Amino acid sequence: MSSDIERLIQQLAKLPGLGPRSARRAALHMLKRRETLMLPLVQAMTAAAEHVLVCAECGNLDTKSPCAICADPARDPAALCVIEDVSDLWALERTSFFKGRYHVLGGTLSALDGVGPDELRIPQLIARVHASQVREVILALSFTVDGQTTAHYIADRLAGSGVGVTGIAHGVPLGGELDYIDEATLVTALKARRDLG
Amino acid sequence: MSSDIERLIQQLAKLPGLGPRSARRAALHMLKRRETLMLPLVQAMTAAAEHVLVCAECGNLDTKSPCAICADPARDPAALCVIEDVSDLWALERTSFFKGRYHVLGGTLSALDGVGPDELRIPQLIARVHASQVREVILALSFTVDGQTTAHYIADRLAGSGVGVTGIAHGVPLGGELDYIDEATLVTALKARRDLG
Repeated sequence: MSSDIERLIQQLAKLPGLGPRSARRAALHMLKRRETLMLPLVQAMTAAAEHVLVCAECGNLDTKSPCAICADPARDPAALCVIEDVSDLWALERTSFFKGRYHVLGGTLSALDGVGPDELRIPQLIARVHASQVREVILALSFTVDGQTTAHYIADRLAGSGVGVTGIAHGVPLGGELDYIDEATLVTALKARRDLG
Repeated sequence: MSSDIERLIQQLAKLPGLGPRSARRAALHMLKRRETLMLPLVQAMTAAAEHVLVCAECGNLDTKSPCAICADPARDPAALCVIEDVSDLWALERTSFFKGRYHVLGGTLSALDGVGPDELRIPQLIARVHASQVREVILALSFTVDGQTTAHYIADRLAGSGVGVTGIAHGVPLGGELDYIDEATLVTALKARRDLG
């Protein structure tokens, strides 16, 4: 195999979700479709690499800072949703339900990986909440040990600030058949039961 | 989401094995690693798009034509292995077992998809066999209806040419537990049984 093809496969295999086999398949696929697929992808990657930057306000990725969401006067400045990653922001935006603004932490606290508050966008979050009209901070973090540790840490830091701190609900997902739900989720759903009467 | 990011995701989602979700993940992954991943991948794609071409002799992809395999005097010119795709050539080369040369058809005959001999590299194969020192044509095509139709068609076209035409063996794969093998493969393996005495 020529070194140009080998290098292409090696680089493609570094993408998440592509192993050596699917990287070979992707390389062959694009080499057969240079004009329709390979060059448009090169152009899209080059344009994104040049233009996309991190919003200084919330940590979102956009071609401008503040990003389109932070700059949108129609978004409620009183509700701030705290998430781990830009992918979570995209997931919430796809629902079109939340009309407030976001704050992307960039991960969760992790003793194991040596991630403290200053490695995340937590100091900026605290400053932002104190300096702005935020009335409610909604913590939409992973339902994992690290995610919930991070949620508790932020709630502690904001205690006494006069700002409401809420967390998204955990329980059985829509369409979730009880038989297939893990025990820890079932216990959580039972404990968080609501009065329907 | 900015249009630059959207376009990047759309283009990535056209790669085989990447759906919308994994394309979003790959886009985010590369936007966070511009210097170490995104730009090296752009460079690898650009170099491959510029330099890789189809070998006029065998249909392989390489940076020169004839390709490194066709031009290698150490490869046996008497044995020619016929395959559907460059990915099959890569798979056979990884075994380091076959020391002959290849001929890439570019697919199989398919009445359904309107693929006739002239849509494949079959006329070139016949001409190549007649013009060269090939003594054995090894058909390594898929064990599917279209693959085997193509094998029979090529064997017919080469009948009377004085060149031996063989096909790779079909049967139970290495490590294949009988219980998990489909019935058609089992019947094939039974019919092709060999004398061990």
